[in-house]
Amino acid sequence: MSNGASGATLRYDTVTFLSDYGTADEFVGIVKSVIRQLAPGVDVVDLTHEVPPFDVRSGGLTLARSVQYICPGVILAVVDPGVGTDRKPIAIEVAGGAAVLVGPDNGVLAAAAGMIGGAERAVVLDRAEYRLESPGPTFDGRDVFAPAAAHLCNGVPLEELGTPIDPALLMPGILPLTRVDGDELVGEVLWIDRYGNAQLNVDPDEIGSWGDRIGITIGTSPRTARRAATFAEVAVGELGCIVDSYGLIAIVANRASASEMLGLGEGDEVRLRRLLDDDEVAARPAPTKVALGPSRTNPEAHARRDS
Amino acid sequence: MSNGASGATLRYDTVTFLSDYGTADEFVGIVKSVIRQLAPGVDVVDLTHEVPPFDVRSGGLTLARSVQYICPGVILAVVDPGVGTDRKPIAIEVAGGAAVLVGPDNGVLAAAAGMIGGAERAVVLDRAEYRLESPGPTFDGRDVFAPAAAHLCNGVPLEELGTPIDPALLMPGILPLTRVDGDELVGEVLWIDRYGNAQLNVDPDEIGSWGDRIGITIGTSPRTARRAATFAEVAVGELGCIVDSYGLIAIVANRASASEMLGLGEGDEVRLRRLLDDDEVAARPAPTKVALGPSRTNPEAHARRDS
Amino acid sequence: MSNGASGATLRYDTVTFLSDYGTADEFVGIVKSVIRQLAPGVDVVDLTHEVPPFDVRSGGLTLARSVQYICPGVILAVVDPGVGTDRKPIAIEVAGGAAVLVGPDNGVLAAAAGMIGGAERAVVLDRAEYRLESPGPTFDGRDVFAPAAAHLCNGVPLEELGTPIDPALLMPGILPLTRVDGDELVGEVLWIDRYGNAQLNVDPDEIGSWGDRIGITIGTSPRTARRAATFAEVAVGELGCIVDSYGLIAIVANRASASEMLGLGEGDEVRLRRLLDDDEVAARPAPTKVALGPSRTNPEAHARRDS
Repeated sequence: MSNGASGATLRYDTVTFLSDYGTADEFVGIVKSVIRQLAPGVDVVDLTHEVPPFDVRSGGLTLARSVQYICPGVILAVVDPGVGTDRKPIAIEVAGGAAVLVGPDNGVLAAAAGMIGGAERAVVLDRAEYRLESPGPTFDGRDVFAPAAAHLCNGVPLEELGTPIDPALLMPGILPLTRVDGDELVGEVLWIDRYGNAQLNVDPDEIGSWGDRIGITIGTSPRTARRAATFAEVAVGELGCIVDSYGLIAIVANRASASEMLGLGEGDEVRLRRLLDDDEVAARPAPTKVALGPSRTNPEAHARRDS
Repeated sequence: MSNGASGATLRYDTVTFLSDYGTADEFVGIVKSVIRQLAPGVDVVDLTHEVPPFDVRSGGLTLARSVQYICPGVILAVVDPGVGTDRKPIAIEVAGGAAVLVGPDNGVLAAAAGMIGGAERAVVLDRAEYRLESPGPTFDGRDVFAPAAAHLCNGVPLEELGTPIDPALLMPGILPLTRVDGDELVGEVLWIDRYGNAQLNVDPDEIGSWGDRIGITIGTSPRTARRAATFAEVAVGELGCIVDSYGLIAIVANRASASEMLGLGEGDEVRLRRLLDDDEVAARPAPTKVALGPSRTNPEAHARRDS
Repeated sequence: MSNGASGATLRYDTVTFLSDYGTADEFVGIVKSVIRQLAPGVDVVDLTHEVPPFDVRSGGLTLARSVQYICPGVILAVVDPGVGTDRKPIAIEVAGGAAVLVGPDNGVLAAAAGMIGGAERAVVLDRAEYRLESPGPTFDGRDVFAPAAAHLCNGVPLEELGTPIDPALLMPGILPLTRVDGDELVGEVLWIDRYGNAQLNVDPDEIGSWGDRIGITIGTSPRTARRAATFAEVAVGELGCIVDSYGLIAIVANRASASEMLGLGEGDEVRLRRLLDDDEVAARPAPTKVALGPSRTNPEAHARRDS
C-alpha cells in the first residue's frame, strides 16, 4: 500500500494525525491533500480532530494515552493557540527513529514523547524550502507541519528540516501527579470519554490493597464506588471503580454516564478514601429508617471510627 | 493498493467499520492503528461511528441497510454495552466467504448477516494468541475485534480464531414487522436520517394499490402525506411518502425535516391508512370555514364513510 | 498506493469528497464503498461532510477555498437539495484534465472550477450503464456520482459518461462582491470557522492603505478592530483584522470567537470604514465619563467628521 504510486521507498508510510481542527471545516482534508501530494503512498490515520479548540492539555493527554498503539511513523499533533507567534514548530525523534512527533512546541507532544522513551533529537522547523508559501500566517498545519511530515516520510533527514534544538529545552507536558492528604488520595480527572467514564490519574497500585468499596469525594459530597472488573458488575444507579482500558483507575457507571451523575469535568479534583468494613455499610445508600427507640448503631463501629 | 507494503497476499484488503465510539475520543484511530500494524496493506472504510452509545438496534439497522453496498471483506461492528461480560465476541462467515462479520454476539450483526444469505459458519473469538494483551477488559474493539479483523485479512482461517459455534445459537437481530389493525397498516420508524426523513419498515408493495394520498397517524393526530417520487414533488409544508434510496417507504418533507414536523423518533409507531377520494378531501388541512346556515357537507361522502 | 490491487493503470488515484451528508448516517461510507469496488486502488480524501444540509452556497465556498490545495484527480461535491428532479448531474473537466469536478449542476462546483481556470468541457451524467441501478431516486451520491467518479479514475473518457453540455450553460456559483457605500466598504461574511473567525469577501488590497485600526459596523453597532498579522497580537477582548490563511480579510479574536462576540453569521453584511487618527480615539471603547461642564469633545474631530 505504501509505495506503489511513487515507485520510491518511503522511510515512513503512516502519518497519525491529531488536531483541534474539527471536521466541519476543510482543515483536515487540506492537510491530508498536502501530505498526499508531497508524499504519494503515505496514508494518514486520524486519531481525533475534536480536541476542544486550543486545549493543549487535552490534546497532549489523548496523544499520551494512544501512543503505544500508534503505528511507527510520523505523529502529527496540531493544537496550536500560538500559531504565528514565536512558539516554535518542532519535530522530535523518539525510539531510535521509529517515530517522529511533529507539532508546535507548546507541550502537546511532550507526554507522548515521554511515554515512548523521551525525545532523542529535535529540530525547529525553520527552513523555508520545506514549507509551503503561505497567503497568511495562521494555518501552520497546512504550510509548516504537513510538509514536514511528508518530507520525513520521504526520507528527508531530521537535521535537514531545521535547526537542531536541545530536547531538554522543549516545553514540558503536564501529567498531574496524585498526592496524599490525610486519609485521602487526591487525584484528578484526566479524561471524560464518550460514555461518560472519568479516567483518573490514579494507578491501580495506589489503591491496590483497599477494599471492595472506595470512598469518593468530589467537592463536598461523599459517594461510594464499587470496585469492578467490568461495567456490567456495577448495578444500575451505582458508581463503579474499574481499571480502564489504558490501565488507569476510572469512575464509571453501567450503561450510564458517571460524569453526568457526578457533575464531573476534565481537570476536576477527585478524592479517594479507603473504606473500612463499617464505613462501607454506613456509606451505602440505604432506605431511610425511622427509629423510635434508642439508636441501634453498632457501638463497635463507632469505636473503630474513633481509633 | 492492497499488498504492496507487506509483499504478502491478503485474503481481504478492506475492513468496513461501524461503531458507537464517536470520533471525539481516539478509539476509532486506535482500532485502525492496530489493524494497520497487524495487516499492512488493508484499508479501513468508516461506515459511521456515531451510532448512539449502546444502541444495538440502531447499529444493526444501519449495517443491514448498508451491507449490500459494502466491499467484500471484513465487516467490523462494535456496539457493545456488554463489553467484558460473558457475551461472546464472534466472527460470522457469510456468502461463501465473501465477507466475515466481526463483533459482539448481541444482535448487532444479525440483520446484516441475514440480508446477505445468513451466517454460514461462526466462531467465538476466544484464542488468546489472536488478541492483544489488555491492561483492562473494557476495550475489546482494540484488544479482540481489531486483531481478529486483521488476522482474517491476512488469511488466518476462521476456525483458527476461536471455537466454532452453531450459527443457529447466535443472538437474533430485530427487524420489526408491520401488522394490520382494522383498516390501518401499523409500522415503525426504523431510522431518522440527517435530513429528518423517517424510514418505515414498510415495503412499497404493502401500499402498492393505495391512492395518491396516504393517511398517517402518529399518536392521535391524523395527517395526510402525498405519494411522490422525489422530494421536489412535495409542496412546502406538506408531508410526502416516497420510496427511499433503500427501497422502503419513508415519510419526508421538501427541504425540511419531516421528523421534526411530526415529532417522530426512531422506534415510534406510525399507522398508515388507505384514503378514499373523499377522505382525501376531508383529511387535507383546510381553512377554517364558518358556516352560519345548515351544513353544506357533501351527503354522499357521509354515506360512503358510513358504508 | 494507487494500483497494486487492480494491476491496471489508473488515470486518477484520488477522489476528494465534500458533501452535506454528515457522518452520523452511512451515506459517506457507502459512497466510498461504491468507489472502492468500481475502482480498486483509488483513495478518497474527505474534505468535509458537515456542510449544512442543502447549503449549496456554503459547500461551494468551501470547495473554492480548498481547491488550490486539493490533489489532482476527481473532486466530488454533493450538496444536492434538488436530487431526483431535472437538475442535471454533471462532470466538468478543468485545468487541461488535471481535475474533473463531479456533482449536481446547482452552482456548488462553479466557484471552484473558476478558481482553477474555468470549465473546459462538461457532460451531463445521463448514461444508465455508468450508474447503479437504484431502488429509489434520492441517493444520487451512491447511484450516479460515485460511479462516475470511479469510472473517471479508471480512465473512462469524459465524453463516454454522458451528453456534452456547453460549459457556459452551467449554473454559476455565487461569489459575492464588495461595494462602496459612502465612506464604507460593504462586505459579507463568507465563512465562520470552528474558532469563530469570520472570513470576509474582502481582499487585503481593498483596505491596503488604511490605518492600524478599522471601523466595523454590523447592523447598527460600530466597533473597532486592530490590524494584526497573528491572533496573538490581538489583545483579549479586542477584535482583530487579519489576512487569513486563504489571503482574505477576517475578523478575529485571540483565543475567543469573534463571531460570537459580534453575533455574526455566514452571509451577514459587514461594513468597514477607514478610521482617521481622531476617529480611532473616539471609536475605542472607553470608560464612561461624566462631564459636568461643557463638552470637551475635540472640535477638530467634529469638523472632520462633517466634511
